[in-house]
Amino acid sequence: MLDKHRITILGSGNVAWQLSRSLAKSGYQIEAIYSRQQRHAEELAQLFQDCTVVLNTDFSKSNSGVFLLAVSDNALEEVISALVVPSGALIAHTSGSVSVEVLNGFSRYGVLYPLQTFTKGKETDLREVPFGIEGSDETVLAELSALAASLSKNVQHINSAQRKIIHLAAVFACNFTNHLLSISQEILKMEQLDLELLRPLVTETIQKAFELGPQKAQTGPAIRGDKKILEQHIDLLRNTPELQELYRLFSKRIERQFDNLIMC
Amino acid sequence: MLDKHRITILGSGNVAWQLSRSLAKSGYQIEAIYSRQQRHAEELAQLFQDCTVVLNTDFSKSNSGVFLLAVSDNALEEVISALVVPSGALIAHTSGSVSVEVLNGFSRYGVLYPLQTFTKGKETDLREVPFGIEGSDETVLAELSALAASLSKNVQHINSAQRKIIHLAAVFACNFTNHLLSISQEILKMEQLDLELLRPLVTETIQKAFELGPQKAQTGPAIRGDKKILEQHIDLLRNTPELQELYRLFSKRIERQFDNLIMC
Repeated sequence: MLDKHRITILGSGNVAWQLSRSLAKSGYQIEAIYSRQQRHAEELAQLFQDCTVVLNTDFSKSNSGVFLLAVSDNALEEVISALVVPSGALIAHTSGSVSVEVLNGFSRYGVLYPLQTFTKGKETDLREVPFGIEGSDETVLAELSALAASLSKNVQHINSAQRKIIHLAAVFACNFTNHLLSISQEILKMEQLDLELLRPLVTETIQKAFELGPQKAQTGPAIRGDKKILEQHIDLLRNTPELQELYRLFSKRIERQFDNLIMC
Repeated sequence: MLDKHRITILGSGNVAWQLSRSLAKSGYQIEAIYSRQQRHAEELAQLFQDCTVVLNTDFSKSNSGVFLLAVSDNALEEVISALVVPSGALIAHTSGSVSVEVLNGFSRYGVLYPLQTFTKGKETDLREVPFGIEGSDETVLAELSALAASLSKNVQHINSAQRKIIHLAAVFACNFTNHLLSISQEILKMEQLDLELLRPLVTETIQKAFELGPQKAQTGPAIRGDKKILEQHIDLLRNTPELQELYRLFSKRIERQFDNLIMC
């Protein structure tokens, strides 16, 4: 008999770890872990009572009411094409960049998308993590909503077009921000200085950006229209033309914001 | 008689507020506030006992042993050229981007540079803020070191060349990062979504970058070599060629990091 409190997790990576542990704490039964990497699946499954490791994707005899696909984007299509779930079961993937429609071969399907980056071995508190959910019909949406609400205070209906935009925005706000810190580290090395020096400044900058909004929170030579410093910085970067180009692109955009302020 | 526990603050902006309040708490006497904006100087001076507001820059009869220049970079030169301090007094500026040598017309001079961004009305705990100090001789350095150590646990000798590099690195790590959040906000608006949605993700990203180092912490489609997503993102940005250019520049740099990983 299908039971919507029994969950099968497909995947054994960081998302699979975080979700399965948090779901178990919220009272769900993690019934099975599927992974192509047996050892990873075993490591994860041993955390839960009566949880089995499954190495093939035919779940037609399973009692799980919910199947969560937490495999990498690359593996998603292959796993889906081989997957058989009991009729009536709900299947949801957890990816930020894949449409819900990759699951339309199933009768009840959706998305459960945690807006967070997870690190192996580091438990993340999901209560504050926004969950974007999407479902093939109203009952699916209600079930996923209940599931997400047991994990987080912040559950939102996010459709596939929105998820794509969130993913793009996150590339700028997270992946590129991280790379700016790499660049910063590289620059500091020119004078044998450590990135750690900037930690309080960066932390405060991020906090301010979210409190005031990034437009109001903008500081630095470009927003002050300080040409002298801008030229000095371009000169300091003379051995790295690519960084000069990045510096100019950012400064041009920020200066435009400064011009708009003056026009107002 | 000069007293090195009596301090005159030149400036009434955010840095002046933060430093003077913290110095007063550490037992220093804030003797006078100089500002070209009388009202601002009065607002600040009234926080301290026996603190006077001064509107001209002749301090030849002052008892202050220390003069801290916390005016904006633009005003610095003008204030310095008009400034007279008692012989033997120590004078230090607080700027990240100005050489210590702008003060070489004085006999005892230095820099006291707090590596933090300050917001009006928001008191910042300076204990964790790195202070970079520089002095014209060993006794100046020792005095500034004691002063900085009364405010912060993290006092470092940072020369003018290093300070310039730190300032440049901070433009990338803070000013440009803030602008990436502006871009992110702009992108999210395409689907009526709010930047707040990304707050937990950005906060975790920054924490991870400092814990693992930004090279190891890099995530996203470019480091995975995920061409499909990169193309999808470039296409989503088709109406903003400047953002496409930024996206390509960042991705090219991050992909190179990915290639290096594969080569290892």
